[in-house]
Amino acid sequence: MKSVITEIGRNGNDVKKSLGAKTILLPTPVWVIGSYDKEGKPNVMTSAWVGICCSKPPCVMTSLRRATYTFGNIMERKAFTVNIPSESFAKETAYFGSVSGRDVDKFSITGLTPIRSDLVDAPYIEEFPLVVECKLLRTIELGLHTMFIGEIMDVKANESILGEIDSPDIEKLKPFVFVPGSRNFYRTGEYLGQVSSLAKKLNK
Amino acid sequence: MKSVITEIGRNGNDVKKSLGAKTILLPTPVWVIGSYDKEGKPNVMTSAWVGICCSKPPCVMTSLRRATYTFGNIMERKAFTVNIPSESFAKETAYFGSVSGRDVDKFSITGLTPIRSDLVDAPYIEEFPLVVECKLLRTIELGLHTMFIGEIMDVKANESILGEIDSPDIEKLKPFVFVPGSRNFYRTGEYLGQVSSLAKKLNK
Repeated sequence: MKSVITEIGRNGNDVKKSLGAKTILLPTPVWVIGSYDKEGKPNVMTSAWVGICCSKPPCVMTSLRRATYTFGNIMERKAFTVNIPSESFAKETAYFGSVSGRDVDKFSITGLTPIRSDLVDAPYIEEFPLVVECKLLRTIELGLHTMFIGEIMDVKANESILGEIDSPDIEKLKPFVFVPGSRNFYRTGEYLGQVSSLAKKLNK
Repeated sequence: MKSVITEIGRNGNDVKKSLGAKTILLPTPVWVIGSYDKEGKPNVMTSAWVGICCSKPPCVMTSLRRATYTFGNIMERKAFTVNIPSESFAKETAYFGSVSGRDVDKFSITGLTPIRSDLVDAPYIEEFPLVVECKLLRTIELGLHTMFIGEIMDVKANESILGEIDSPDIEKLKPFVFVPGSRNFYRTGEYLGQVSSLAKKLNK
């Protein structure tokens, strides 16, 4: 199964080329961050500089530029949501990353519905099937981006995307990924295997 | 395009269900972290608690439990690599996350080849087509996991996975994603759209 790549890698015709010191790691998730501004106007922005970062307490991080409207919102409200889009919301997700909440009301333009979280001071998107409510735990200044670490207070999912064990089913949710560099969205695809079953093939 | 989910969300038959405070966000990347131990033995472990976290300086984070062998290695060597597997390495990637480098030599068992980075004090996997060399910048204690933030010193890619603009082509690389909860790997799939083109449909 791995023979093609291994052989190419080893026969010397497919040497590694340096691409420089860039954020070229793929794929990355594409998640939408929800927040309120000082006046209570809900805003959303798209972030691919994201990741789960702790299991206990459950935490997620997103890194944002100081220039974004969301940056000030989270600083003020100490809370945000992570809204995970299905591929049917690719257009809205791209749009949310292309304009500032300073200039437009992204909810009214897209027709999506902000719902006030009952756990944290931030709105989530009703139409997105998987949302995560976070309390701001820490901010870490890194340079152009500041990392916001949120403690997960709850995860809410539409029943229609749940699988057998009350866990989101990726084939029903149909989330997509971002490719830094080309700046394209790609679908998630077919089942490749269960981690422990795959590991057993080598773990004797 | 979005009508199905929107209508389900709005007709009241598909209400949101609380899943609790858990790290259920998907999909996540599946990246393999390379490091040396005190004696110079190369080790690799799989991490899905990862993400790009700053553009300038270019940084990536991975969160590891203190119990892992890699934790001590990175603390000692102040460096790590991120190795991005193609789907042909799903078995090895699952295996790297299932055993400790304290007990086994993961390179000799899988037959993969550690290459010493000339930029940082860590090894990368020759056969993996996309590798990122990082200098440890900061560690952040969060709880069960500690976040390691690495500054990217270089990205190296096999020429066979590069697209037109010397940027990795996801359709050639064929990376895969992890689903927390079900603990399955899924392939990346079809092209969904270019971010700026998708955004234009709403951005008048």
